[in-house]
Amino acid sequence: MINEFYREMTGRESVIRQFFDYSRKRAAELGPDSVLNFSIGNPSVPAPDSATEAMQTLLREMDPIALHGYSPTLGQPSTKAAIAESLNKRFGMNYGPEHIFPTSGAAGALSHALRAVTKPGDTVITFAPYFPEYIPYVTGTGAKLSVVPADIDSFQINFEKLEELFAPEVSAVLINSPNNPSGIVYTTATIQKLAELLTRKQEEYGHEIFLITDEPYREIVFKGTDSPFVSSYYDNSICCYSFSKSLSLPGERIGYLAVNPKAKDAELIVPMCGQISRFTGHNCPSSLMQLAIEPVLYTTSDLSVYETNAALLYEALTEIGYTVVKPGGTFYMFPRSPIADANEFCWTAAKELGLIIVPGDSFECPGHFRISYCVPTEQIEKAIPLFEKLYRRFS
Amino acid sequence: MINEFYREMTGRESVIRQFFDYSRKRAAELGPDSVLNFSIGNPSVPAPDSATEAMQTLLREMDPIALHGYSPTLGQPSTKAAIAESLNKRFGMNYGPEHIFPTSGAAGALSHALRAVTKPGDTVITFAPYFPEYIPYVTGTGAKLSVVPADIDSFQINFEKLEELFAPEVSAVLINSPNNPSGIVYTTATIQKLAELLTRKQEEYGHEIFLITDEPYREIVFKGTDSPFVSSYYDNSICCYSFSKSLSLPGERIGYLAVNPKAKDAELIVPMCGQISRFTGHNCPSSLMQLAIEPVLYTTSDLSVYETNAALLYEALTEIGYTVVKPGGTFYMFPRSPIADANEFCWTAAKELGLIIVPGDSFECPGHFRISYCVPTEQIEKAIPLFEKLYRRFS
Repeated sequence: MINEFYREMTGRESVIRQFFDYSRKRAAELGPDSVLNFSIGNPSVPAPDSATEAMQTLLREMDPIALHGYSPTLGQPSTKAAIAESLNKRFGMNYGPEHIFPTSGAAGALSHALRAVTKPGDTVITFAPYFPEYIPYVTGTGAKLSVVPADIDSFQINFEKLEELFAPEVSAVLINSPNNPSGIVYTTATIQKLAELLTRKQEEYGHEIFLITDEPYREIVFKGTDSPFVSSYYDNSICCYSFSKSLSLPGERIGYLAVNPKAKDAELIVPMCGQISRFTGHNCPSSLMQLAIEPVLYTTSDLSVYETNAALLYEALTEIGYTVVKPGGTFYMFPRSPIADANEFCWTAAKELGLIIVPGDSFECPGHFRISYCVPTEQIEKAIPLFEKLYRRFS
Repeated sequence: MINEFYREMTGRESVIRQFFDYSRKRAAELGPDSVLNFSIGNPSVPAPDSATEAMQTLLREMDPIALHGYSPTLGQPSTKAAIAESLNKRFGMNYGPEHIFPTSGAAGALSHALRAVTKPGDTVITFAPYFPEYIPYVTGTGAKLSVVPADIDSFQINFEKLEELFAPEVSAVLINSPNNPSGIVYTTATIQKLAELLTRKQEEYGHEIFLITDEPYREIVFKGTDSPFVSSYYDNSICCYSFSKSLSLPGERIGYLAVNPKAKDAELIVPMCGQISRFTGHNCPSSLMQLAIEPVLYTTSDLSVYETNAALLYEALTEIGYTVVKPGGTFYMFPRSPIADANEFCWTAAKELGLIIVPGDSFECPGHFRISYCVPTEQIEKAIPLFEKLYRRFS
């Protein structure tokens, strides 16, 4: 018989998906100009030529048996060494290849990291607003997800609520900075305060509490933003990275996790990830992709359009009257909805204006909406009068 | 704290791995000529040029944003349609794109198929000798693995023992034909008898019993071998395939599962796989690889060396005196050990002669050893006198 748990889930479409589907339906009925889609976090700039060339060179020059052969269970040694070196150079860390585990994007990295440092029945804390896939990533390990409500004035950490939610069964804390959906980057002060709290809680409970950092937007940080490398501030940390956004390769499913060399049992965690893969059927990212990212570790796509769009949109929205916490990076903005029910606000935008934005409820932060501005700048320019119309309509 | 279950596993190295490591150590100490390695199932022939060209054409001609963008959760529609069509043409099936789910190789396919049709506490039956990774694949879903002992005279199914092991909590049966490690292909008669038994058990227990077929060696079948397409014979079936062996792309992690259109709830299973991925962090194979296999679905690498090696080795070993069931495909052979303890036999071969073969104990079939003959034919020729020496040594 088919599994009822997964069968039941197929009936429940995510709200983001509903907006996306509406946008496609409307475009099909009324023409592509009838829709300005801001619902999807898919990079809008191409992969850098150097990444394409790296793939082409491998295909042209390397022995295909070696190129496409099984990579070692714990990842291509040369790729692991190159990733470690790049992190050490850029962030003053001390990673060795033995601390790096190549994964199928950040999803793969998080799934391994969470299984490595929790056991069924544990609690993992995260912070609203958060990427809704954290629910299956965490519950898939058998742990529970506990959510700290948002500090909607800054989208930094609400420490008072965090302290309240802490309990002995908390084995990991999961953060995402730069953040989807708020675009906010945790400041050095925030990270220091978090590290102090976690250190204190480790002593209080007598066990390690791991900090898992979801960092796919690390390279998309705007000028002047304080953007600390989190693992520098807390030893028991695992950094989860993806090349999806920085190299515009989301479909290639290539990322890694990096275990802090100072973490408890640091040398065990990557071998444990090799074991975890056997149970989930993950078994390494593409061997071509592992090798192709090696020569482009210090490169990104031309990410400047995201900063241009952020500035344009932020200025326009605040001038119209929207309350917006200024994003420090990513390609997301998370304004306050002019009415309490962001769901109603977003459906009105979609149906009356063809403006596709998604309600904050999906990120456990009601009363807000997410704009994904990984789009051509002209789309922002077209959308501004519609955002104005919408604001007037509701205030 | 780190997870004790996975930590403990890192200490337990597989026997296959121990032999592989010994072979590397010996080669490093005594030179590469001191070792004839028959322990690894890595294709020894390159990917066909057409596969490399397909990748190169995509990289040269396709818009990189589309090429490397997120593929839909349930897979690239054109790839799914092409796979369905190729199976329909070749095997007279009636798959639609909605029955095909691209996966990270057969490991990904099996992990999804098992989760889709079992629930924690169920039992999955498989047949010795079997690929040892079935243990984590099955237990990772929360189900138990129950193993039917081998029929060592034919390596077809031991139906008497299967019948004894059947119970109401059996929700799936997992077969691997052509088989690793025996090289045997289940005959049409075997598959028909299995289908009859499963149909009868479904009626007896009043619930579906799914047949999951692990088919990465489907294209490596030797002349004259009866090789039925299993899903033609039983409706509640899911075929799990990988291009690792047929296109020599094991490191690229590209395969699929195909749900029999006549299966109960056939139209639900692929959407369920999309949900399952969220819990395991799997999220689709590489988008480049999904698109690249489309034009090469009717192609394989030049697989003829495996048949040449099989014939040479089978003839030599039986002439020496070994008892061998003649393989019908794959690149494995599974002779009986001249002494009961195959482990001792294989270590003697490794240490005295540098002949690296692996004991059948790893495949839950003691008293046998596996030869992986995905090697240049000259290696077979060099090995034959050593197999003879070994046989004389023990008999």
